[in-house]
Amino acid sequence: MGKQYEALVARLREIHNVGMAASILSWDQQTQMPRGGAEARASQLATLSKIEHEMFTSEITGQLLADAATEVADADYDSDAASMVRVVQEDYDNSTKIPTKWVTEFTQLTSMADGIWAKARQDKDFSQFQPSLERIVEMVREKTEFLGYEDHPYSALLNQYERGITTTQVKKIFDDHKAGLIELIAAINANADKVDDSIMHRPYDVDKQRQFGLKMIEAYGFDFSRGYQAVSVHPFCTHFSSNDVRLTTRFDPDFMNTSVFGMMHEAGHGMYEQGIGQNLEGTPLASGTSLGIHESQSRMWENLVGRSKGFWSWALPQLKEIFPHLESVDLNTFYKAINKSEASFIRVEADEVNYNLHIILRFEIEMDLITGKLDVKDAPEAWNTKFNEFFGITPADDAQGVLQDVHWSYGIHGYFPTYALGNLLSVQFYNEAVKAHPSIPSDIANGKFNTLLTWLNENIHQHGRKFTSDELTNKVTGESIQSRDYLAYLTTKYSDIYEL
Amino acid sequence: MGKQYEALVARLREIHNVGMAASILSWDQQTQMPRGGAEARASQLATLSKIEHEMFTSEITGQLLADAATEVADADYDSDAASMVRVVQEDYDNSTKIPTKWVTEFTQLTSMADGIWAKARQDKDFSQFQPSLERIVEMVREKTEFLGYEDHPYSALLNQYERGITTTQVKKIFDDHKAGLIELIAAINANADKVDDSIMHRPYDVDKQRQFGLKMIEAYGFDFSRGYQAVSVHPFCTHFSSNDVRLTTRFDPDFMNTSVFGMMHEAGHGMYEQGIGQNLEGTPLASGTSLGIHESQSRMWENLVGRSKGFWSWALPQLKEIFPHLESVDLNTFYKAINKSEASFIRVEADEVNYNLHIILRFEIEMDLITGKLDVKDAPEAWNTKFNEFFGITPADDAQGVLQDVHWSYGIHGYFPTYALGNLLSVQFYNEAVKAHPSIPSDIANGKFNTLLTWLNENIHQHGRKFTSDELTNKVTGESIQSRDYLAYLTTKYSDIYEL
Repeated sequence: MGKQYEALVARLREIHNVGMAASILSWDQQTQMPRGGAEARASQLATLSKIEHEMFTSEITGQLLADAATEVADADYDSDAASMVRVVQEDYDNSTKIPTKWVTEFTQLTSMADGIWAKARQDKDFSQFQPSLERIVEMVREKTEFLGYEDHPYSALLNQYERGITTTQVKKIFDDHKAGLIELIAAINANADKVDDSIMHRPYDVDKQRQFGLKMIEAYGFDFSRGYQAVSVHPFCTHFSSNDVRLTTRFDPDFMNTSVFGMMHEAGHGMYEQGIGQNLEGTPLASGTSLGIHESQSRMWENLVGRSKGFWSWALPQLKEIFPHLESVDLNTFYKAINKSEASFIRVEADEVNYNLHIILRFEIEMDLITGKLDVKDAPEAWNTKFNEFFGITPADDAQGVLQDVHWSYGIHGYFPTYALGNLLSVQFYNEAVKAHPSIPSDIANGKFNTLLTWLNENIHQHGRKFTSDELTNKVTGESIQSRDYLAYLTTKYSDIYEL
Repeated sequence: MGKQYEALVARLREIHNVGMAASILSWDQQTQMPRGGAEARASQLATLSKIEHEMFTSEITGQLLADAATEVADADYDSDAASMVRVVQEDYDNSTKIPTKWVTEFTQLTSMADGIWAKARQDKDFSQFQPSLERIVEMVREKTEFLGYEDHPYSALLNQYERGITTTQVKKIFDDHKAGLIELIAAINANADKVDDSIMHRPYDVDKQRQFGLKMIEAYGFDFSRGYQAVSVHPFCTHFSSNDVRLTTRFDPDFMNTSVFGMMHEAGHGMYEQGIGQNLEGTPLASGTSLGIHESQSRMWENLVGRSKGFWSWALPQLKEIFPHLESVDLNTFYKAINKSEASFIRVEADEVNYNLHIILRFEIEMDLITGKLDVKDAPEAWNTKFNEFFGITPADDAQGVLQDVHWSYGIHGYFPTYALGNLLSVQFYNEAVKAHPSIPSDIANGKFNTLLTWLNENIHQHGRKFTSDELTNKVTGESIQSRDYLAYLTTKYSDIYEL
């Protein structure tokens, strides 16, 4: 590539390094920092964030982008250079569209709102949070105008996490499987007595849980020479390079699922980051393409692989060696226990059958809040009515309902749908992998995971942020994101488990 | 304070934050980073270092300093504001005196030299390292000219770690106790059979070592709500705020001293940082005043407290609870065992009697290298001759001699003396504390450490970098750094232990 492009990349690498440094500070904050360090850490992060923003949105960067664009004008759409200029130009436009004054006010507003929300949830009292949320929704509406949109203001929000996707597209995908989910959930609830998961709820030594979980994700192919696992209150995955990927785990001494499936989930994210092409290392393209695609990887390794009967035909004997009290449990009982499905109020506790419906509920409410069709003050009632319609049960209070998620206090409206898209894509991609390599299910049942991982590396991971999720999905599966495969997967799997 | 001063401090806080971020990256590198992360981490650290340097040495900072200096011209010498402007102006002058071109070349030279030195040490072959060291010494000489000095070029190097101290002063301090040390070491070696430390060399469970060490430093007063301990290959202490101080420990499963006295040592550094006045938090004055003063704190808690008989009259029964195999060991035997003194070739393994002589040897050789009185090629022979003169034994090879330390490959000549000054100051300060509070020795024997710690907080810690080590020493003890107290302490203690 030419000199202008090289100059652009050199500057982007420095800006990227500042962002990665901030990620390291956040990681440390959640894994090692003593509580006394909170104030200084907030100040350090604010400085790095300011420097990164100033460097990225400066006229120097704009000029380098323009010069490089001319230079790479003839490069292929799929080439690293054309993708770099295209994607970073989009990032640049988004960063420069929002006035600094708005950002400052919004940051202050949401950092206050976070504490207010936590208190309101504790007190189960939405009215405490209502004024903050009203102002947040007002400002988020302003944000949609700054960012711009075609079909719907909500698209501007979606696009922050899922580049290029539209509200129309997401609404259709969600509408397509909403009724099917409601029906399946009702059928499962009617047959609840077919599954007993009491064997999962008993003391499991934490060190042994960790030992087993690490063994499983190492078998998956998570590379510990380029990765590390720690403990934190909320499990997450982060990275500072595709060669330095970090996972955290939360342990429950009385419930093994939390740690084991949590590790598989985060390892799914982690293997995505480890699989990004080394040609993109250190640049803004060296990351997963979107939250939805990212979630497809975590959900695939957690659910499609980790909650399959084949996997446990290989893994259960090993688990029994570590936890002899499982000795008498047969594969089928264990398989059913780890797949117990139950309608419940809290999204983060939802199983794979219930999960998307929690998201569809939030999507519909968020859209109505942004358009003004729903007043903030009426959100709790709208939530509870919809919840009953979807799940057949009604939250007892706002803590179980509208106040349960932290997202709105952060002002990250438009984020929720990516979780559901991830579930859908996990099955689309898995089916495609099996089409290419029919041995994958039996490989998994033999503890051989690299057939799947290599396929994911080649078809998804290596591209980093070069494509939008829709471009990538079409490239890999020949069609856009759809809910057909997911609903079929759930119906088959749970008809068997619950004898529907 | 006025607006100019506030503007200066605001900028210094941002620059400080970038530096602290770099420290967090280094901490992570040594405690959690997988080996795959090394390349990206080097790049991230280089970016932060570049940004910090550019921000600090920019004309903006220079102008803010000049404006603030006018504003605080009438403030007391001891005030925060006058100290801030005075100390930071000195930092600024030093940072701007050295040409960027020199820094770039020196960084390249030393990053190459580090690997060459490691190989040479492994091969016990100085000639491999000689060309690198020759160029390093040449460049270090240039550095002394950039920085400037009064009595001796070596003072410019000393001042990087010990502001305001002169070569003349250090030489006198060292000459004052050199003969005394040589004599004491010879006497101890002649009575070597009086102490047997075989009880320290046996298996000690690492988890239990950690448990005991943490209990001891918590009792000392290291505040874990503002601190954290991790494991690393080389133990160190670092901080990202006076409310976020980190220690690391190295464990030897067959020798308890490594971890227990290591923790006490690092906790001494850590309690210094935790004791810095909150009025200085987040500014460039929020750190220990110099390496020598810092080392005085680590050595005091490691040796004056941690290797005293009084301390173990309180701690040994607790150690016996954790390690029952010590049950039959009496206090006197244990006290002698942890204070075994022995002339040996390696500085980092030296006990408190031998340590300063190792430093004096390096100081004399470094001075001669800088003045050119000694050629680099003749350094191994000069080292061995001097070593025999001081300790009565001769290194078998260069790995045991001139090649043992990493410092010269880093180009940090002038650093070694601070270790010895720390030993001297530990006794000067301790004696002064006992003068003020005669109960300190008996308090220690009763597991009560806050009499000493509070005195250190008030007299030393709170001031941060406001004063030079000489100013602080005079303020606290009424005289400059001297070796009289240290030699008297050693003579009394070891005459008892070795029945001299």
